[in-house]
Amino acid sequence: MSTQKIRVSVVGGSGYGGGELVRLLLNHPNVELVQVTSESNAGKFVHSIHPNLRKRTDLKFVTISALQPVDLLYLALPHGSAVGRIDKFASLAPRIIDLSSDFRLHDPALYPQWYEHEHEAKEWLSKFVYGIPELHRDQLKEANYSAGAGCLATATILGLMPLFKHGLVDPSMVIVEGKIGSSAAGYKSSAGSHHPERSGSMRSFQPTMHRHTGEIEQELNFGVKPTVHFSATSVEAVRGILATCHVFLKEDLQEKDIWKVYRQEYNNEPFIRIVKTKEGIYRYPEPKVLSGSNFCDIGFERDTRSNRLVVMSAIDNLMKGTSGNAVQAMNVMYGWEETLALEFVGLHPV
Amino acid sequence: MSTQKIRVSVVGGSGYGGGELVRLLLNHPNVELVQVTSESNAGKFVHSIHPNLRKRTDLKFVTISALQPVDLLYLALPHGSAVGRIDKFASLAPRIIDLSSDFRLHDPALYPQWYEHEHEAKEWLSKFVYGIPELHRDQLKEANYSAGAGCLATATILGLMPLFKHGLVDPSMVIVEGKIGSSAAGYKSSAGSHHPERSGSMRSFQPTMHRHTGEIEQELNFGVKPTVHFSATSVEAVRGILATCHVFLKEDLQEKDIWKVYRQEYNNEPFIRIVKTKEGIYRYPEPKVLSGSNFCDIGFERDTRSNRLVVMSAIDNLMKGTSGNAVQAMNVMYGWEETLALEFVGLHPV
Amino acid sequence: MSTQKIRVSVVGGSGYGGGELVRLLLNHPNVELVQVTSESNAGKFVHSIHPNLRKRTDLKFVTISALQPVDLLYLALPHGSAVGRIDKFASLAPRIIDLSSDFRLHDPALYPQWYEHEHEAKEWLSKFVYGIPELHRDQLKEANYSAGAGCLATATILGLMPLFKHGLVDPSMVIVEGKIGSSAAGYKSSAGSHHPERSGSMRSFQPTMHRHTGEIEQELNFGVKPTVHFSATSVEAVRGILATCHVFLKEDLQEKDIWKVYRQEYNNEPFIRIVKTKEGIYRYPEPKVLSGSNFCDIGFERDTRSNRLVVMSAIDNLMKGTSGNAVQAMNVMYGWEETLALEFVGLHPV
Amino acid sequence: MSTQKIRVSVVGGSGYGGGELVRLLLNHPNVELVQVTSESNAGKFVHSIHPNLRKRTDLKFVTISALQPVDLLYLALPHGSAVGRIDKFASLAPRIIDLSSDFRLHDPALYPQWYEHEHEAKEWLSKFVYGIPELHRDQLKEANYSAGAGCLATATILGLMPLFKHGLVDPSMVIVEGKIGSSAAGYKSSAGSHHPERSGSMRSFQPTMHRHTGEIEQELNFGVKPTVHFSATSVEAVRGILATCHVFLKEDLQEKDIWKVYRQEYNNEPFIRIVKTKEGIYRYPEPKVLSGSNFCDIGFERDTRSNRLVVMSAIDNLMKGTSGNAVQAMNVMYGWEETLALEFVGLHPV
Repeated sequence: MSTQKIRVSVVGGSGYGGGELVRLLLNHPNVELVQVTSESNAGKFVHSIHPNLRKRTDLKFVTISALQPVDLLYLALPHGSAVGRIDKFASLAPRIIDLSSDFRLHDPALYPQWYEHEHEAKEWLSKFVYGIPELHRDQLKEANYSAGAGCLATATILGLMPLFKHGLVDPSMVIVEGKIGSSAAGYKSSAGSHHPERSGSMRSFQPTMHRHTGEIEQELNFGVKPTVHFSATSVEAVRGILATCHVFLKEDLQEKDIWKVYRQEYNNEPFIRIVKTKEGIYRYPEPKVLSGSNFCDIGFERDTRSNRLVVMSAIDNLMKGTSGNAVQAMNVMYGWEETLALEFVGLHPV
Repeated sequence: MSTQKIRVSVVGGSGYGGGELVRLLLNHPNVELVQVTSESNAGKFVHSIHPNLRKRTDLKFVTISALQPVDLLYLALPHGSAVGRIDKFASLAPRIIDLSSDFRLHDPALYPQWYEHEHEAKEWLSKFVYGIPELHRDQLKEANYSAGAGCLATATILGLMPLFKHGLVDPSMVIVEGKIGSSAAGYKSSAGSHHPERSGSMRSFQPTMHRHTGEIEQELNFGVKPTVHFSATSVEAVRGILATCHVFLKEDLQEKDIWKVYRQEYNNEPFIRIVKTKEGIYRYPEPKVLSGSNFCDIGFERDTRSNRLVVMSAIDNLMKGTSGNAVQAMNVMYGWEETLALEFVGLHPV
Repeated sequence: MSTQKIRVSVVGGSGYGGGELVRLLLNHPNVELVQVTSESNAGKFVHSIHPNLRKRTDLKFVTISALQPVDLLYLALPHGSAVGRIDKFASLAPRIIDLSSDFRLHDPALYPQWYEHEHEAKEWLSKFVYGIPELHRDQLKEANYSAGAGCLATATILGLMPLFKHGLVDPSMVIVEGKIGSSAAGYKSSAGSHHPERSGSMRSFQPTMHRHTGEIEQELNFGVKPTVHFSATSVEAVRGILATCHVFLKEDLQEKDIWKVYRQEYNNEPFIRIVKTKEGIYRYPEPKVLSGSNFCDIGFERDTRSNRLVVMSAIDNLMKGTSGNAVQAMNVMYGWEETLALEFVGLHPV
Repeated sequence: MSTQKIRVSVVGGSGYGGGELVRLLLNHPNVELVQVTSESNAGKFVHSIHPNLRKRTDLKFVTISALQPVDLLYLALPHGSAVGRIDKFASLAPRIIDLSSDFRLHDPALYPQWYEHEHEAKEWLSKFVYGIPELHRDQLKEANYSAGAGCLATATILGLMPLFKHGLVDPSMVIVEGKIGSSAAGYKSSAGSHHPERSGSMRSFQPTMHRHTGEIEQELNFGVKPTVHFSATSVEAVRGILATCHVFLKEDLQEKDIWKVYRQEYNNEPFIRIVKTKEGIYRYPEPKVLSGSNFCDIGFERDTRSNRLVVMSAIDNLMKGTSGNAVQAMNVMYGWEETLALEFVGLHPV
């Protein structure tokens, strides 16, 4: 463990991803949290927006224009807001971890397809490592820039990676149904997020063309570009994602064969748990017990009637899906214990 | 409207399906509700179990042994409980509507596959009409016996029927993700239904081998037996089902072509609504606004990247998914206005 | 029952109270719903805002300026929006039922106290009957104008009226804790109604000075002006109010004595139920089983340690608390069966 | 910080209080968690019951009969289960912290009143310190035995203590309305905890005679025995308590005077926060942002119409209300930093 703390600031701290970063960084033994920005809340206490931080920090929001140079800058801005100012941010810190979608896709041609506009800083795309440590740990160790993965993408990619890496499933037929809580839509209220309308809903907010599809196909490409059919449905929860993935085995593998592959890839991963038990209430991954934790729980079931394999993957969208993962990436980049500041295991019951 | 009421009793009235039947039948202009049975609650007021019926009825539960002959008997017993006594029940009433799975499948060979036991009264299977009026209205008009459809099956079948009937999709690749509330698991408490454990959950309770698959494949068989890959996930809700169905178009149809087919099949159906709007909060079917109503709302979206069509179908599992549908079936069997006692449109907000 | 329908319009139909009125009036045998206004949604289908009305009505919103004369006008505008235009509305209809707070208080001096402004049409105050039929049925029969009661006030007043009318409790010490769902705050989204913030909350939104206190004290004044200490707390629900009222008996009455008084006042009331059972889950009033119904359920428990009596009163805030009650008031005003269009008993489970 | 860890075991580890203790103790730098008992789950992994502990511990439940001597024993048994075996437990450990109600009341005469039976080990009552550190820190430092406070009692006592200690309010008229989530009723499922029945409820489960009243009156007795009128209502939540307390000021104090008293008592308390802001969503204490944290948030509002003061107090019932408080008590007993293992601040949003 390093004895000298690095200096870190968070740009965009009034949103949910930014607030979660602040919570985690305040508790990180190797980090000094220097500044947190919010244009609309500048001058107010950070805890005036994030009430869990009362009596924990007296930091006040500052504007971006007041940012000081630091060792690492977290960008937690809305999608599309970082790319135009990336040079400025890079001048303030040698290392940047961006939570937005601005630098996730390597191929610039994918931005018009998924985000309806040309990428404004194409030269930066190759500098950013896609920030899921379980896939790109070695690259992250050498990286100065990391792009945070999309929350639904993270659950899907981690759930399916071993199968694709080992070439066990048909890459042309992947159906993923992502169920997700309300916090993933951000901290700004809207007609659709109004509690009487959103409460108890099962809402097909993106049956096709979900933007995370692009990064899922990028990351599951182990030589063959997969076709992922993705649909996203909002359900009653604040935090949490459950990705239910339907894939088709090329060969008639048994569940024990599949176990073996998952164990091989994930047994040493501190934040991946294979959840598949014969009894009990929590026989498969379930996001509610992950709230606040950085775990990704993964389970699977072989359909005995066909070659279908159902893979279930659960995360807290604001932790392993956003900010927890970004802290893990920082830990990797600095060569620290990967679990630093991410020890919270989640609650039961909750 | 007939001037003489028929006499109807409900067997198994302490469960959720039975309670819903009682609520509906008490309000039916052509029905006299005669008896409601419950072995464990015999002698108690029906409203002691179903508090919404306070001041509405003073009926008390009786035992099955006290049943009197009636015109129509509803059976709302647990699965497997009706089949062994079907002759006895038939001796009490010329017409029977059974809500359980005991008489849904026409092929006796399917019972061992889906229910792990031989059917005990195979000779009865052909007498029961599968009770979804939108598919079997003409048969129901002539029928004395109707088998209530499974709740997840109903949502799926109604959502996909036009596509299969018109041969528009590949029957060999159908993936259905059913999301469902807690009332579908019945009125008996268990460790998994304990509120601290069930609340806020996204629980993969049946990733493969869901029993409703059998009836879905039976009903979507328009000459070609389909293969349906079904998974069921519990989400936070008491009532409600959203079936998200992924099918693949054989030809490159536009959404307007698909509209045409759905309109043709459903435009005159009083309980089917096509829900597909460009703006607003409720752009696609959503079960929460259906609670208490007998509607099945259906929507669809063509994936512009592939030949996938996503069909979304929403119902109240206790209404169109069970008891409302059974009242509709009775209305058809007696040649009454099909919407009798089913006029409630649901609440907004809720 | 009249054979000729009256013509009715709803002013302010995009809100929750207005939407509920539309739902009820569409189902009322003696009413023709003529127009529904919304300034911001004029030209759109009513069902584009209230999705439960799809396939039930093709009415479109109109502006207030397009209103035609009718027999009865419902005003469902935000508080303070009716008073300035009351003469105009009165010129359009001989009868008006206003859901807002604009005409609830008889004493003009109370408006500055509770609403921070002088009343703009004091001469109208005496024309409006406070619209709870259980208290003012005879007046309503003669009335042309009725002021809808506040939702929290309705639950409290109906819960406590028998005790005050019979002079059984100390009027100087009344503590009421109202728990309430999110729909009561209206249909406009805000930071506080944003689902991630509102979901699962227990929020003291008005510990003191709740405006409904004024009408509660007005209506419980049976010769002695009471002092009501009111606090309101938001809890997780969309619909529903539970008022828990703590009062102190002047004499050492037994529960059976109290039963007698409640029976005397409420036994013939179609929408009041005394709920107090020794066993079962629903031993006391609970709003969730009232959603969509017009019932007010009332229970009580004598504290054996002191002279405290706890009275619990539950309603659906949009039904008996607003629109259901307003339809009931109309039924009274026209001498119709009081339960017309209000037969729905609520769901179980829900 | 001590360098040698103490050895601790948990008796009754399959319940919610016991599970929370295990979670906290596994993370405590000065504690070695030795054994966790469960008679019904002996031999199973602790994480088979508490899924948040997967990959965190491989401990298995043992029976009580297998308990080894340790430095400190936590008793997390159902109420009434510890008292009969207290000598046996005391023979196993020099220090005991009991979470049940068995040793909370000092006066043996109160047990028949509140718990309907004579206390079976009266000689032990004086040995147990009532375990709220904010009230009894000095005693706890010298104590070997501590009795965990009731969860609703803790919220109420901490909310009101400064007012009673300083003699500011009328002790004869205290009304407390406790709102509470489902986890407080324990881990055993029942008809009332069945999700379809419990979900979304506002349930008056104890309008009078709540057992925690006894300890509240004991702890708020600063020379004058108070009379506390307590009512408890279940609302939709898994964790969380909000106690809304209505008290009456003896003199006409301003809010700033009251601030002063609360500051004096609580400013140095690491787990008490005064929450009272003029703007923002979280202007008053709200339990949802406290889930998993050991904070007690307290706010108040002076009624400008009367001498009423409304005090609001929020906790996580399983943390400050049970297990977090018990870990804090241990930290005090051993002279450690009081916040050890209790650093988690809660989530936002959640």
